[in-house]
Amino acid sequence: MKPIRYGIVGSGALGGYYGAKLARTGCDVHFLMRSDLEAVRRNGLTIRSKDGDFHLPGVNAYGSPAEIGPCDTVLIAMKTTSNTALPTLIPPLLGPETALVTLQNGLGNEEFLASHFGARRVMGGLCFVCLNRTAPGVVEHYGHGTLSVGEFKGPPQDRTMRLVTDFQRAGVEAKAVQSLITERWRKLVWNIPFNGLGIAAGANVAQVLADENLLANARALMAEVIEAAGKQGYAIRPDFIEDQIQRSLSMGEYHSSSQVDYEAGREVEVESIWGEPLRQARAAGSQTPRLELLYALLSRLAGVRMNPQINAD
Amino acid sequence: MKPIRYGIVGSGALGGYYGAKLARTGCDVHFLMRSDLEAVRRNGLTIRSKDGDFHLPGVNAYGSPAEIGPCDTVLIAMKTTSNTALPTLIPPLLGPETALVTLQNGLGNEEFLASHFGARRVMGGLCFVCLNRTAPGVVEHYGHGTLSVGEFKGPPQDRTMRLVTDFQRAGVEAKAVQSLITERWRKLVWNIPFNGLGIAAGANVAQVLADENLLANARALMAEVIEAAGKQGYAIRPDFIEDQIQRSLSMGEYHSSSQVDYEAGREVEVESIWGEPLRQARAAGSQTPRLELLYALLSRLAGVRMNPQINAD
Repeated sequence: MKPIRYGIVGSGALGGYYGAKLARTGCDVHFLMRSDLEAVRRNGLTIRSKDGDFHLPGVNAYGSPAEIGPCDTVLIAMKTTSNTALPTLIPPLLGPETALVTLQNGLGNEEFLASHFGARRVMGGLCFVCLNRTAPGVVEHYGHGTLSVGEFKGPPQDRTMRLVTDFQRAGVEAKAVQSLITERWRKLVWNIPFNGLGIAAGANVAQVLADENLLANARALMAEVIEAAGKQGYAIRPDFIEDQIQRSLSMGEYHSSSQVDYEAGREVEVESIWGEPLRQARAAGSQTPRLELLYALLSRLAGVRMNPQINAD
Repeated sequence: MKPIRYGIVGSGALGGYYGAKLARTGCDVHFLMRSDLEAVRRNGLTIRSKDGDFHLPGVNAYGSPAEIGPCDTVLIAMKTTSNTALPTLIPPLLGPETALVTLQNGLGNEEFLASHFGARRVMGGLCFVCLNRTAPGVVEHYGHGTLSVGEFKGPPQDRTMRLVTDFQRAGVEAKAVQSLITERWRKLVWNIPFNGLGIAAGANVAQVLADENLLANARALMAEVIEAAGKQGYAIRPDFIEDQIQRSLSMGEYHSSSQVDYEAGREVEVESIWGEPLRQARAAGSQTPRLELLYALLSRLAGVRMNPQINAD
């Protein structure tokens, strides 16, 4: 079988890491890069990982999608705050059967791609991984790395399984999921409270767990998210809340990626993690008062952090 | 009739201002002071006000309640975060008929005094005033000044009307209210959202009003407070929400006292403004999810602001 030709759109920490893992095992990977392009052309990609460091000296790195041309599978790893760039970046990468796989956070990314390129092309992946781009072309991998891949609509297909297989060969713990959107909601059950309270209360995971009022609100937010998912047909069992609390207890002083972004003055993915779930909950007639308040606070806090002049008074 | 002998406990901006207004018109006022004692003994009290500046050269200022001795009426103007000092400060000021009037913010202050000194002694006043202590013995009065005085239990009595009369003679717009605790809840309808979002979202009144998500949450918080008050028999009409929004529109870039305290690194009255209303709402079986989240956030944020080492990680 002809090997998959991969395009990676958004080659920061996420795209750099998963792309480099695939490329290292001989996959045909083409990276669309912006800020890191010159550094990667000069020095290649370096991954520093607890699973073992590695370096790719020769990387197919490009400054425009036209130089890459049509791919079989495009992995989209940009921050969702840059999604408006996708309608111009993607078309040169498309052949008749090209699959678009969003590895991005939160909700609404599959729908966004489907609205521009048709639902049939769209797949998604949930990344449970802790990464940081520490210098141009250098990604630090702190832990985890599991990938759950699924079709936007319907159960896994052949292309889903081929993607899983390529990742597994590349040493990534990957699996196919029956319902991608259910998995997205399950991930949000944790991200909505812990990433959100992380920013709004300035509290890392251990600090949320140690504060009885914050913890009670984290549980209540989880219940709101589970109810909103359920109303849309994405069933999550209520005892998933306790699973998630237990899992969090082992995380220690972990700062969520959103909290890290916020504290570093970078854009926070407020719309995909809080705004879109809230809008979907509302459309389904679900009551999510805590999510509403949290979204309003985060939207304001993240907006002011990026544009401090809004707060000049 | 024998003039009322007044004791003022907590002679910061609030106690200094109202005490000085009374003393200026000849009332017998005795100030319990701590940090400002020496300055006031030396230089008296100075009030700078849009209604006209004035200076009281000779002020009865004391460092301990025993030096003051029994009073007819004790005005309590300390921040509620110092309430634990009251059980030792008050007893030397008590005669058989002494009234204790809490001018403090939020809920629970009357109940606290009643639990230590008997409900019969307890009265309260709501202060709609904008003050700042700018130097020892110097209070800046920025605006307003209305005082609503009532009995903790039941309708106004003779002593209520005498207090109102003394304040009116002193040039304070004062009135007696039929149900003090209803008035406290009415004041919280504004303070809970605007003081709270002021801190949690870093937004002044105009900024809350200009942000559709924050404004929607402000209205929803008001509705929660009105419902919680109603469940306890303190009826507030739902159209009070729109009254309060309209009133807020005229306030401009106003920073609530809690926001000013928070931004200046001073203690915030989290328990009396958010904690106690929440506990009372819960006890009455009222659902207040937004208040719960807001309280948890403020409790954490204000705690960290006062003790930054909690956040060391």
